Amino acid sequence: MDIYSVSPQTLKRLPMYLRFLTSLSLTEYPNISATAIADALGFYDVQVRKDLASVSSGGRPKTGYVTGKLIEDIKKFLGYDEQKYAVLVGAGNLGQALLSYEGFKKYGLEISVAFDINEKLWGQCIHGKKILSVDDMETYCRNHSITFGIISSPSEPAQDIADKLVGIGVKSILNFAPVNLKVPSDVMVENVDIASSVVLLCCHITRNKN
Amino acid sequence: MDIYSVSPQTLKRLPMYLRFLTSLSLTEYPNISATAIADALGFYDVQVRKDLASVSSGGRPKTGYVTGKLIEDIKKFLGYDEQKYAVLVGAGNLGQALLSYEGFKKYGLEISVAFDINEKLWGQCIHGKKILSVDDMETYCRNHSITFGIISSPSEPAQDIADKLVGIGVKSILNFAPVNLKVPSDVMVENVDIASSVVLLCCHITRNKN
Repeated sequence: MDIYSVSPQTLKRLPMYLRFLTSLSLTEYPNISATAIADALGFYDVQVRKDLASVSSGGRPKTGYVTGKLIEDIKKFLGYDEQKYAVLVGAGNLGQALLSYEGFKKYGLEISVAFDINEKLWGQCIHGKKILSVDDMETYCRNHSITFGIISSPSEPAQDIADKLVGIGVKSILNFAPVNLKVPSDVMVENVDIASSVVLLCCHITRNKN
Repeated sequence: MDIYSVSPQTLKRLPMYLRFLTSLSLTEYPNISATAIADALGFYDVQVRKDLASVSSGGRPKTGYVTGKLIEDIKKFLGYDEQKYAVLVGAGNLGQALLSYEGFKKYGLEISVAFDINEKLWGQCIHGKKILSVDDMETYCRNHSITFGIISSPSEPAQDIADKLVGIGVKSILNFAPVNLKVPSDVMVENVDIASSVVLLCCHITRNKN
């Protein structure tokens, strides 16, 4: 199987398996069953069994999977070994926090540079990443064949930024701005909406108090 | 209307309206129509009209809403004026990034303290927030009547942390660990899953290359 043949839902669960598996000590857990993974992550074991069958042929009755082999199989399937580079647009509070977030690297993604409209930031290095003017975005992205963009701007300029990134050839956008971006059908957008989650949870507190 | 009478979907959109509205210059946009908001955020205007009607009675045909009044109405509706405090559990890379994220404050939420198992962090101040041992969690949360928890730990200890928070009286959990948390029905969990989004987008790039 390859990434074309599994569902987006399965794809989304694979990094969860990987994070769990890599958190285990291999001497303590040389083997692991789908049931144990399901228990740890709060999934149904039928689902876990099916997901893992699409990325690894190493499952054995009773013993389960060889943990190290399963980790390698998932990594290979997801193409983590293949280094990918992204640009980040909007180096305000959230953007700077993301520049320090090492989670991206685990998935073979590295932020190569960040762009901002604030000229005070130009030329600065924040968490080891250079901040450039948004005016340099087109040249930089074309020269480095960038196809992955992270938008961490306020909502207002986000659509404009997305349009520019798409025009430059970006095909994958991770969007932290609370806006529904309009993009062509060959471009994929994933929204990470911290604010809305916070609001819902705060309302839940207020509701509980009353 | 109050927060009991609107849908979670509407509640999730309200901060998006607010972020957009507060990004406008009030001298340039003293009034704003539901259609203009819908255009800016990529929503249907019927939906925006309905959402806003449930939080503000200020909408007028042709002129739309008085922008400043609409901002106040949404803030009041969502209880932003009412300060809420959260604890953050797991002060690794992502946790530290979140400690510097000022987005929470906008919604009346402040992280009062963070907990970690790493004793090297105990007593340190990171982005102005004190890091304490997880062993102090129960006492601290009870003494400060904390009902909001943010989990930014790896996946493995996340369920344990959630169980502890729930036991202490936390009712709202913002979960960044890639795990489905099991909690009682009166506790609300919102998952923010950056990793899975990154994986999907990386696969989209690989797919486009081939």
